[in-house]
Amino acid sequence: MTLEINIPEVVAEVTAAFERYERALTGNDVAVLDELFWNHPATLRYGVGENLYGYDAIAAFRQGRPAAGLDRTLRNTVITTYGRDMATANTEFTRPSTERVGRQSHTWVRMPEGWRIVAAHVSLMG
Amino acid sequence: MTLEINIPEVVAEVTAAFERYERALTGNDVAVLDELFWNHPATLRYGVGENLYGYDAIAAFRQGRPAAGLDRTLRNTVITTYGRDMATANTEFTRPSTERVGRQSHTWVRMPEGWRIVAAHVSLMG
Repeated sequence: MTLEINIPEVVAEVTAAFERYERALTGNDVAVLDELFWNHPATLRYGVGENLYGYDAIAAFRQGRPAAGLDRTLRNTVITTYGRDMATANTEFTRPSTERVGRQSHTWVRMPEGWRIVAAHVSLMG
Repeated sequence: MTLEINIPEVVAEVTAAFERYERALTGNDVAVLDELFWNHPATLRYGVGENLYGYDAIAAFRQGRPAAGLDRTLRNTVITTYGRDMATANTEFTRPSTERVGRQSHTWVRMPEGWRIVAAHVSLMG
């Protein structure tokens, strides 16, 4: 079988979910951040300074997250969809507070409850 | 629709591909590394010190890669499959040369030519 790449309506759905996540991240809307991660023990998130295994660990981390200095600018964002149920969303980001270039990688899967992030990796380059 | 999580034979396929990649990485088998990345302009790889867009950029980087000091030890590896055609493979790694903890994230998709990495992110924590 062959998965069709970048079906336009699927790209539009994932882009909307990606943008909703970004607004929640910079606005510190923890409820939406929690909603958009897959509620499952296999979900994981590598952050700049932590490795979090399972939905519960990710949600606990969000609760302790500082609410200031969250603004950032995205660049070179690439969203690619594979068939109708899976996607990758990768972006670089910069913040006023640092010269270092950030990278955020998400894998999105269409679950019964909607598009969810099943794995995330955030790091600063170099 | 609901994607079945971790169908055993799919997990076995992706695990075999993941292990083949790891052997190629530590053995500097560039041909296999190239083979296992999706040959497409949308493929991307964020490395510890570089952001590479497109299969050609990733292959060019491999050609200039040092062939020494590649040994590493994996830990906390998590491979999860979603339906029959998509998977995530995430692992921490350590190297004798540094105390820092590495993280490697791959998204794998079953393409007509076999399982391929469509997006990769490698970083050192903190």
